[in-house]
Amino acid sequence: MTADIFHNNAPHPEPSLLTAFAGNRLDRQSENRADDCVEKALAAEGTHILAFTGPRLILKHDGQILDPLFAPYELAELQPDFDNAVLLGYRDNGEPRIAVPVLIAAEELASHYKPAEARALFRDGLLDEELQGEAAQAIALLNWNAANRFCGKCGSTMEMKIGGYKRVCTQCQHMLFPRTDPVVIMLTIDIENDRCLLGRSHHFQEGMYSCLAGFVEPGETIENAVRRETFEEAGIRVGRVRYHASQPWPMPHSLMIGCYSEASSQEIIIDPQEMQDVRWFSRAEAAAMLDAGTDSQYFAPLKGAIAHHLLRDWIEWGGER
Amino acid sequence: MTADIFHNNAPHPEPSLLTAFAGNRLDRQSENRADDCVEKALAAEGTHILAFTGPRLILKHDGQILDPLFAPYELAELQPDFDNAVLLGYRDNGEPRIAVPVLIAAEELASHYKPAEARALFRDGLLDEELQGEAAQAIALLNWNAANRFCGKCGSTMEMKIGGYKRVCTQCQHMLFPRTDPVVIMLTIDIENDRCLLGRSHHFQEGMYSCLAGFVEPGETIENAVRRETFEEAGIRVGRVRYHASQPWPMPHSLMIGCYSEASSQEIIIDPQEMQDVRWFSRAEAAAMLDAGTDSQYFAPLKGAIAHHLLRDWIEWGGER
Repeated sequence: MTADIFHNNAPHPEPSLLTAFAGNRLDRQSENRADDCVEKALAAEGTHILAFTGPRLILKHDGQILDPLFAPYELAELQPDFDNAVLLGYRDNGEPRIAVPVLIAAEELASHYKPAEARALFRDGLLDEELQGEAAQAIALLNWNAANRFCGKCGSTMEMKIGGYKRVCTQCQHMLFPRTDPVVIMLTIDIENDRCLLGRSHHFQEGMYSCLAGFVEPGETIENAVRRETFEEAGIRVGRVRYHASQPWPMPHSLMIGCYSEASSQEIIIDPQEMQDVRWFSRAEAAAMLDAGTDSQYFAPLKGAIAHHLLRDWIEWGGER
Repeated sequence: MTADIFHNNAPHPEPSLLTAFAGNRLDRQSENRADDCVEKALAAEGTHILAFTGPRLILKHDGQILDPLFAPYELAELQPDFDNAVLLGYRDNGEPRIAVPVLIAAEELASHYKPAEARALFRDGLLDEELQGEAAQAIALLNWNAANRFCGKCGSTMEMKIGGYKRVCTQCQHMLFPRTDPVVIMLTIDIENDRCLLGRSHHFQEGMYSCLAGFVEPGETIENAVRRETFEEAGIRVGRVRYHASQPWPMPHSLMIGCYSEASSQEIIIDPQEMQDVRWFSRAEAAAMLDAGTDSQYFAPLKGAIAHHLLRDWIEWGGER
């Protein structure tokens, strides 16, 4: 019904649609959400549910196939918390899609269930792109609702409204809407020397280098956030900034804004608190890192990660190879 | 010291830097904020303060000049709430810049003070671009801190940390960071007929038409948000989407993400709840609207508004004129 508003109408390939978690095609009906929309969707024919224990999606598995879609009756033994269920939207065939937190802990799940962190969903290829996108929406929404049970202004209880997209304080009527945190992530290019800037945080797997990144600050443009973060983390000055692609990043509810930026200085001065290492990589080195295994001396983030696509697209645009 | 990381290093003109509230050049020292950073900045030589009563910036005025910068001693009669002051950053000359909420109500201010809403700061040209940018940062931060006095997870009191950029629950240790809401705002172009799509909300001043806009939803790319909002509000299908510029929009803490998008359908079907009217405007009509007064039949948003610049830049790129 509305999928063609999204992917089918997009030019191919649109860089954003090549990233993990970007494949959500649900008709969200965001202008028509009523307070009983979850209830109605639960009662509808063909409803399928994504179930979460804490931040982890529960997958049914029979030894071979992993399946995240529960019919309502299949949830009973997982102690579903339907009061905190949220409506994701509708599939093209009219099937509603709902996300439900369950009260059973991950450790207590029977062996035919497998709980999976958001990151594992794409890293381990557990879900197709469309389901990854639906899971991203679910994780962001459930997390935001759970983190706002009480009113930040007066401390009273908040109530969920319109299927999980609004919370209202039962005392002071303060209203809240879902939170999405914009993050800039940039591949900074030294054009003269045909090389790119990559770094690693202290918590990265050994050998992995990725694009620098950071949250957009209050009162900041995207371009200035790119320049500030690159200078803070690596001491590199940046001139021109160009947007390339975006990606929903459900850890728990970020929007990655992927940019190319042009270095106007070369000497790296790292912030040792934030970064373990930052260095320049030649085009050939970067190309090798995209295909290198995780046991290599240097390797890039996995396909699906927006940093991977920033690198890949830079390399494929050419240069002196 | 660091201003050249931002504006001086940017290509001229960078579309984002032509928008209102984008002129912030402060060195935010975002990696080095300590819990006593406001205290230290208050005690420093040359500190200047932006003071707010609720959401309104207080300007000193002597009948001719409007001045938003207070020295600490000038605040006494306004009942400054220094416990909730936030650090904005440092000017190039080393002067700290702080924002402070005051307890005196706007209606109780003496006549040599003028309270001004965020929108008025650029609409009425009350501040230069750099101060507008600092005020945008201040409004976003103060609002976010005031809206999160209590923990959303457990309802206990939260404490401000690192100059206003973190809040921590005194009971459950839940941590929060400043919130920025990404909003897509798009000029949709019907290329074949060389016309653009503009609409008006019910609350717009009579005659004003602007770009369609809406919040990015959880789990959504920028491009899909553009396609979804354009379809929901106007029934128009959109193909290619191209980012153009961003703008901090402190009402209270949005990030406007300005895009061009290509229409792949022509027939407008408005959502009457959200929009009063949406229509196609020819290039000539749109050009006239940019210069038309607010008493004209059709006029565009003011210079500084990102919608104005999306329109202006489309027109200046040419076409059949």
